[in-house]
Amino acid sequence: MVPRGPRMYLVNQFTSGSRPVKRIADSTVRRLSAYLRFLEDFEHRGLATISSDELARRGGTTSAQVRKDLSFFGSFGKRGLGYSVPELAGRLREILGLGRDWRVIIVGTGKIGAALARHHGFRQRGFMIVAAYDNDPAIVGADLDGLTVRDISRLESDVRREHPDIAVLAVPEEAAQPVAQRLVKAGIKAILNFAPAQLQVPADVTVKTVNMAMELEGLSFALTNRE
Amino acid sequence: MVPRGPRMYLVNQFTSGSRPVKRIADSTVRRLSAYLRFLEDFEHRGLATISSDELARRGGTTSAQVRKDLSFFGSFGKRGLGYSVPELAGRLREILGLGRDWRVIIVGTGKIGAALARHHGFRQRGFMIVAAYDNDPAIVGADLDGLTVRDISRLESDVRREHPDIAVLAVPEEAAQPVAQRLVKAGIKAILNFAPAQLQVPADVTVKTVNMAMELEGLSFALTNRE
Repeated sequence: MVPRGPRMYLVNQFTSGSRPVKRIADSTVRRLSAYLRFLEDFEHRGLATISSDELARRGGTTSAQVRKDLSFFGSFGKRGLGYSVPELAGRLREILGLGRDWRVIIVGTGKIGAALARHHGFRQRGFMIVAAYDNDPAIVGADLDGLTVRDISRLESDVRREHPDIAVLAVPEEAAQPVAQRLVKAGIKAILNFAPAQLQVPADVTVKTVNMAMELEGLSFALTNRE
Repeated sequence: MVPRGPRMYLVNQFTSGSRPVKRIADSTVRRLSAYLRFLEDFEHRGLATISSDELARRGGTTSAQVRKDLSFFGSFGKRGLGYSVPELAGRLREILGLGRDWRVIIVGTGKIGAALARHHGFRQRGFMIVAAYDNDPAIVGADLDGLTVRDISRLESDVRREHPDIAVLAVPEEAAQPVAQRLVKAGIKAILNFAPAQLQVPADVTVKTVNMAMELEGLSFALTNRE
């Protein structure tokens, strides 16, 4: 992800009427996702409550940070008693928009795109892959675990008719910006970008970039600059 | 990536003797990677200089941030003249540890691991995939574009003999921590983790986590909490 300063969200539907609207940073949202994972692990193990200390310890942060993160969204837990695991997990799922299914399309079915299309883990969290596209005639029509690869020429008409929520962009670097523009023009508001490109999109479109080369460079930096 | 507070690096080899050692945040390192990409694009186009304004514009940040990021590593550029593209690109490659090859192993050759093993883009930046491992007898011995999948039982002895620098962990969630411990015990100091797990490793081991489910949740949050 190329940082462009912290992206902030206005959140008001979770706050009481008298409380001012607050801005939520990306890093907070990531921690909420992490907390939810630990809570679900606790749910599986049948545990009823969790303390902010325990959530903090598992998330590698502080209990003050946990309480601050959760305070954006209202009042949770009782001092000394901790949080109710099912209640907090339910609220986090609601906050993260996981109470419904999201329709996901994959654009570009090379090695990474095809691997993602065949990955079944997303479905468990409500991310349903409903279509996959490629521009290679040798790939169009192929079957990816039940999903038929569609010709990318159909992208705009399909998006306008089928209203997918999220597009996963797994095209070569040079195609990323033009394809992103086509997606945005057709009405897509959320893109998960695997191309090593800084996408330019309107302010009402959210892009998350997974840049594996950049992560590797973070590791080579760390190995080179060890204390 | 599960945030555990900003990870900082002590950097001293790039600073002059009298300057105090500085701590470099992960987010700075990510921006350096991004700047290097833009500089390389400029190099390809034969451009000799770039201003901090231009670097900032392309990186979605401010020129003050660009100057601050680069100032950690010494003095670059001349006021009003901008930065020399080849000089700054060369220094950034040096800072990021890209002046040498890094030996990478892939552990877990399911859909994502196999796609990564076959991805040729990493090699261009000096990340050479030298081995791949799996525990599935049906996969061990298979060919991944010239790389023979090895039995994971060989992991420790291979690592001790071949000294790879970086391990890419693409195993199922429940295997991530035990396999990470085996890698660390065998001497690995850098892990790129694709499993949706918060790895516990010693302080001298660097972990970067690519968590696609978490990125998708960031998008569902954004779609749910639109202004």
